[in-house]
Amino acid sequence: MTLIHIADPNDPRIGAYLDIKERDLTGRQGRFIAEGKVVLDVLLTAQRFRAESVLVLENRLAGLGGILAKAPPDLPVYVVSGETMDKIAGFHMHRGILAVGSRHAPQTAAALLEELPAGALVVVLVGIANHDNIGSIFRNAAAFGADAVFMDPTCCDPLYRKAIRVSVGAALKVPFASFEDTAAFTRELARHGYDQFALSPAGATDIRTVRRGRRVALYLGTEGEGLPKDLLDKLATVRIAMRRDFDSLNVAAASAIALHHFSESE
Amino acid sequence: MTLIHIADPNDPRIGAYLDIKERDLTGRQGRFIAEGKVVLDVLLTAQRFRAESVLVLENRLAGLGGILAKAPPDLPVYVVSGETMDKIAGFHMHRGILAVGSRHAPQTAAALLEELPAGALVVVLVGIANHDNIGSIFRNAAAFGADAVFMDPTCCDPLYRKAIRVSVGAALKVPFASFEDTAAFTRELARHGYDQFALSPAGATDIRTVRRGRRVALYLGTEGEGLPKDLLDKLATVRIAMRRDFDSLNVAAASAIALHHFSESE
Repeated sequence: MTLIHIADPNDPRIGAYLDIKERDLTGRQGRFIAEGKVVLDVLLTAQRFRAESVLVLENRLAGLGGILAKAPPDLPVYVVSGETMDKIAGFHMHRGILAVGSRHAPQTAAALLEELPAGALVVVLVGIANHDNIGSIFRNAAAFGADAVFMDPTCCDPLYRKAIRVSVGAALKVPFASFEDTAAFTRELARHGYDQFALSPAGATDIRTVRRGRRVALYLGTEGEGLPKDLLDKLATVRIAMRRDFDSLNVAAASAIALHHFSESE
Repeated sequence: MTLIHIADPNDPRIGAYLDIKERDLTGRQGRFIAEGKVVLDVLLTAQRFRAESVLVLENRLAGLGGILAKAPPDLPVYVVSGETMDKIAGFHMHRGILAVGSRHAPQTAAALLEELPAGALVVVLVGIANHDNIGSIFRNAAAFGADAVFMDPTCCDPLYRKAIRVSVGAALKVPFASFEDTAAFTRELARHGYDQFALSPAGATDIRTVRRGRRVALYLGTEGEGLPKDLLDKLATVRIAMRRDFDSLNVAAASAIALHHFSESE
């Protein structure tokens, strides 16, 4: 890595970090912001994305030695004071560690599907438009060894800054791809030999009784609406048993229980 | 209920709603704020707390009929315009439904313990200081039929506005109490015949292999530090099996998996 001290918040070399809060809303042409020590570590370790630069508070630099040692020698590491950091980011950045990463051209769902191993656990998301939920689901997917996450066009971007942060970097680690048409993608999964389970409060089978096959696809929908009825009609539906007087579970919590059930970890 | 139209944001009758965002930080002397339709429903249905008043946007009133029918006849329901609502709350309140509830004198942990049934599942929280996590854990506790939540003095208040909202009202439903000394409370639980399990990433036993006894206490600690070592030394420790290269699970997700495991629902 190459240390570069920056004093001017308008220095063009750190232009990618300017007003990150505002710019989150408008997209960044193939780039994303990674925040915090753990996420930076994942970015520099995982192979799926490339770090373009790092921006770090001068008083956080000493604690980053081990992580920055994993960076390629030409990675620019911009070092700034707290005052300059806040001016760059547009708000008080108490974490003090940011990185810009770049994504390659997105992989198609069909291409990602071809790459998966003979035994695979995949997550299929329909309508998950909340960055907290997307981030948490990716975190659970990584913890329980899911091989990929597939998303319909109404899901939000897992590389949004907050989603990456909530995922603790899992959004940079677990391969993902979007599909256009859910019905067509379901046929594709069937063709590849996946047992497909739709999680629903009214699911026909208690998930505790479901045996894992070699290839499993777990479908998750939004908390309010749930998965679309035409999808539920086509797939095996599973439920998480809950109290009748309070049958309300956050979709991320539901994903944790279901992925833990289907996981082959340990 | 009694409908009262209010035009002046400084009307003393709605003083309890003024600047709720700021006042969250300073405590409210036995009162709390409930937000949204679902939480209001829990407040009016559950027996543990009393609604003092409701504040509602005029255009939301029609949709609340079924819920407000559960209110006692003398409950004041203040009706305001959107402009007045925002001035009262101090920020844009798009939900448009607020209520002030009051808590009785808090129950001691010892008293709550005496009330629990012969078969019971309780959650013991140590150091959970994040309102999102507290709220999510209460939501999971309600969904999986936990009988009570006990908290050490470093846990945050489950009746904080955001914690209630995240819990979807479960913080008003699941009985809770605080204890002063964790070691003494652990002895108390043992005396009451509880099998006590501490959830820890390095736990001795995979939770999938643990059988539920008649009385179970599940201990959860913070994500970073985990449960204190002296506590782990004294209790049976259980782990949730995860990938070795990403063994990071949010404490609320962990609570969902563990409570689902110990739940007797359905």
